[in-house]
Amino acid sequence: MRVDLNSDLGESFGRYTIGMDKEIIPLITSANVACGFHASDPVVMQETVRLAKEAGIQVGAHPGFPDLMGFGRRNMVISREEAYAYTLYQVGALDAFLQAQGCTLQHVKPHGAFYNMAAKDETLSEAICKAIRDYNKELIVLALPAGELYKAARNLGLRTAAEVFADRAYEEDGTLVNRKKPGAMITEETEALTRIIRMVKEHKVQAITGKDIDIEVDSVCVHGDGVKALAFVEKLRDGLTKEGIEICPLNEFV
Amino acid sequence: MRVDLNSDLGESFGRYTIGMDKEIIPLITSANVACGFHASDPVVMQETVRLAKEAGIQVGAHPGFPDLMGFGRRNMVISREEAYAYTLYQVGALDAFLQAQGCTLQHVKPHGAFYNMAAKDETLSEAICKAIRDYNKELIVLALPAGELYKAARNLGLRTAAEVFADRAYEEDGTLVNRKKPGAMITEETEALTRIIRMVKEHKVQAITGKDIDIEVDSVCVHGDGVKALAFVEKLRDGLTKEGIEICPLNEFV
Amino acid sequence: MRVDLNSDLGESFGRYTIGMDKEIIPLITSANVACGFHASDPVVMQETVRLAKEAGIQVGAHPGFPDLMGFGRRNMVISREEAYAYTLYQVGALDAFLQAQGCTLQHVKPHGAFYNMAAKDETLSEAICKAIRDYNKELIVLALPAGELYKAARNLGLRTAAEVFADRAYEEDGTLVNRKKPGAMITEETEALTRIIRMVKEHKVQAITGKDIDIEVDSVCVHGDGVKALAFVEKLRDGLTKEGIEICPLNEFV
Amino acid sequence: MRVDLNSDLGESFGRYTIGMDKEIIPLITSANVACGFHASDPVVMQETVRLAKEAGIQVGAHPGFPDLMGFGRRNMVISREEAYAYTLYQVGALDAFLQAQGCTLQHVKPHGAFYNMAAKDETLSEAICKAIRDYNKELIVLALPAGELYKAARNLGLRTAAEVFADRAYEEDGTLVNRKKPGAMITEETEALTRIIRMVKEHKVQAITGKDIDIEVDSVCVHGDGVKALAFVEKLRDGLTKEGIEICPLNEFV
Repeated sequence: MRVDLNSDLGESFGRYTIGMDKEIIPLITSANVACGFHASDPVVMQETVRLAKEAGIQVGAHPGFPDLMGFGRRNMVISREEAYAYTLYQVGALDAFLQAQGCTLQHVKPHGAFYNMAAKDETLSEAICKAIRDYNKELIVLALPAGELYKAARNLGLRTAAEVFADRAYEEDGTLVNRKKPGAMITEETEALTRIIRMVKEHKVQAITGKDIDIEVDSVCVHGDGVKALAFVEKLRDGLTKEGIEICPLNEFV
Repeated sequence: MRVDLNSDLGESFGRYTIGMDKEIIPLITSANVACGFHASDPVVMQETVRLAKEAGIQVGAHPGFPDLMGFGRRNMVISREEAYAYTLYQVGALDAFLQAQGCTLQHVKPHGAFYNMAAKDETLSEAICKAIRDYNKELIVLALPAGELYKAARNLGLRTAAEVFADRAYEEDGTLVNRKKPGAMITEETEALTRIIRMVKEHKVQAITGKDIDIEVDSVCVHGDGVKALAFVEKLRDGLTKEGIEICPLNEFV
Repeated sequence: MRVDLNSDLGESFGRYTIGMDKEIIPLITSANVACGFHASDPVVMQETVRLAKEAGIQVGAHPGFPDLMGFGRRNMVISREEAYAYTLYQVGALDAFLQAQGCTLQHVKPHGAFYNMAAKDETLSEAICKAIRDYNKELIVLALPAGELYKAARNLGLRTAAEVFADRAYEEDGTLVNRKKPGAMITEETEALTRIIRMVKEHKVQAITGKDIDIEVDSVCVHGDGVKALAFVEKLRDGLTKEGIEICPLNEFV
Repeated sequence: MRVDLNSDLGESFGRYTIGMDKEIIPLITSANVACGFHASDPVVMQETVRLAKEAGIQVGAHPGFPDLMGFGRRNMVISREEAYAYTLYQVGALDAFLQAQGCTLQHVKPHGAFYNMAAKDETLSEAICKAIRDYNKELIVLALPAGELYKAARNLGLRTAAEVFADRAYEEDGTLVNRKKPGAMITEETEALTRIIRMVKEHKVQAITGKDIDIEVDSVCVHGDGVKALAFVEKLRDGLTKEGIEICPLNEFV
């Protein structure tokens, strides 16, 4: 049994610092690195790749909407051509820093609203995945297994990794419960931990309706933006390890 | 005798169109394609690479300052780290479109104020050339032969191509005469043409002082932003061809 | 009988020129001037206000989404607080150029997707109108009479001006027919002209269903982005004048 | 004897938070509020003005270069027209938030590299001051008394306020010692405090050469970006008060 731990980082910009990259990096196996659209700038990207390389963790591109002011979290209606080109641009830009440091890009995971909209939109997902495929067929697409992006990646013959969330409730169809609904967030740490371990071991999770559903899991998304978040990741690592689950990057088992 | 003709293109942005890319492309052998900082966006880059590929011309990256409002033409004081990272980011972003279309990046030529400042600044030039080298040792640096960028590229073992300008006067040291000085611009077409042919055949040009100086030339920079500019390029092609000079991209002879 | 003719202008940016501002200005009575978010920059705004002042036409603010790459034409989901602050910021920025030149801001008309989304969204419209009211109670809100923005402006006690489109078909409820539907665009010039004259004289227009509906009209939106568009505006002016309809800015009759 | 304490704030952007605005606001009398070019966004501006109003402190516009990535700290060569229009745009945008909240703009102080370049550049300073004058003749220009901006404001008949720095050494001509020179920064708190009190009481300061020079002072620039900085401001307030110096905003005595 193996699982990857991924986290969004490299989200600082210019003189603005956000996140606790140095603290979260030793705890994870794959980093989703911002590419300059919703967050980050070239100097931050250079430094983030350096930190990831130094720690020996894998790097993925985290392309987002061109909306720095909204941190890529606001829905934007973009065309198929735009989705394709925005993905290609950002993936290539990040990969340049990896190439220059002798590293290899492992995966792509869209960010924020780009991720959420893609999960529900076949056309958008197809455009994103075509960009990834046209750039490098070996890249892994990290996505919600019940979403359209995951499906589009499969359809195009790309390698996929199923992502789960420790702090989110699921609908019976495997999609995430809307944050505005009551019960959408799993706030109790022990419960979150137990759910993750069950997902990895049994490929099952209890949906918000109470019904058990099947769920694939290759990677758990964790947060590194606070002391409490970091403490949870440490607990998660301990919990997984005690269960004999190996924590390792996607490219070792996908 | 061989020479390359290069031109800046792919400078449109969103709904804004600039330049006559479709008209200039058939007349040149190398395109300097904007990378989204001083001009262009991902959709424009995708289309520009497509047009270049279709016409069989070579593509270079044309990185600029992060100053869309000033079209990258305003001097900005950036650090060594910023120059390195801005170059790497933009080269990688453009290369993604080439890779996706099965093409190979030929060269890098900084844009506007980035080009002009680099020509006079050893530190800036070294940072730019290190980024190019770290990304891909095979890339050609297209630069003013009398400038610092050209020297830095040589020092780092990169391939270089010497660029000349048909419409600019030269100082005795091979640098361009400041545009504000009288006589800085060569406005008479026949004179411009004669000078270029002499540069290619004899590696000589008359400096603004009247003295003949040595000048290297691998590529002539031409403009494609107007009917008159396009007509001049046609005349230049005719003139060069009549003299038995072959017009071909840099990667065939550098 | 009086009517205003409004047009979007001042949409150039940096070295990018768009529109035929100098040609359309003498033909209209109110200009919707871009404020730097979806288009324009401070230098363009200064020049646009100068041209409008010189021609004696009225100026309105044309705030848009912060999406220069998409020209403000892409739907973006923004919060109430963002809509309020984006409107206030842009209106104030444009008004500074008017104040500096001794002119008075006449109206506000949101741009593109901001206009279209507001027309259907009560919350968004209320936020926009609160910003306008808090800035200057005397400003006129130029909007689709059947839309939410118009209603919100009325509810907040603001002056309103009803805008109609010569080239668009209407649903029975007075909203615009979606551009994707057949028949959405009125492409025949004589028909467009006849419809406008009838709207102004009778306050009636035939909906796409064939049924006559009531329609308010204070201002006709015209385009200035091409020779054909300009010719149509001239015909429209002639047609209106022949019918005894006076063409004058909103602040003379609203 | 009266003196103002000013500080730069409202520099957060989107999801990025910077500075300790809530902590510094009660300690100062005038806030220099960022206007969206080098830092800030409309939502941050709305909130910053609200906080300033609530605390009863005065607000000034803090226009900067259009360089968010460099936080407005990088020198940029802009034209006279650009300097004029960038100032007008930013001052108007900020003033909109003040007007909407029933407040009055007190002053203008350019930010970072815009401030530093203006201090040495007559043309740039004149363009900035013309924009301020054309917008509102009553605005106070807060500037280095030995610099060009101060002189330009005087020449144009604007009200001026002389700004001094507690942590910076002075040349004999009253300009700031370049940060790269040894001794440029006054790091010892007691010395900084003593210098400020002497400047206010005697209008004298010891230049880096050892010679006493005359110095005007209306306002002391203080920092609010750290616990240590805040503690210094408290000490400064105590020290000034003990000397019978009243701390009050510029508009009460300029």
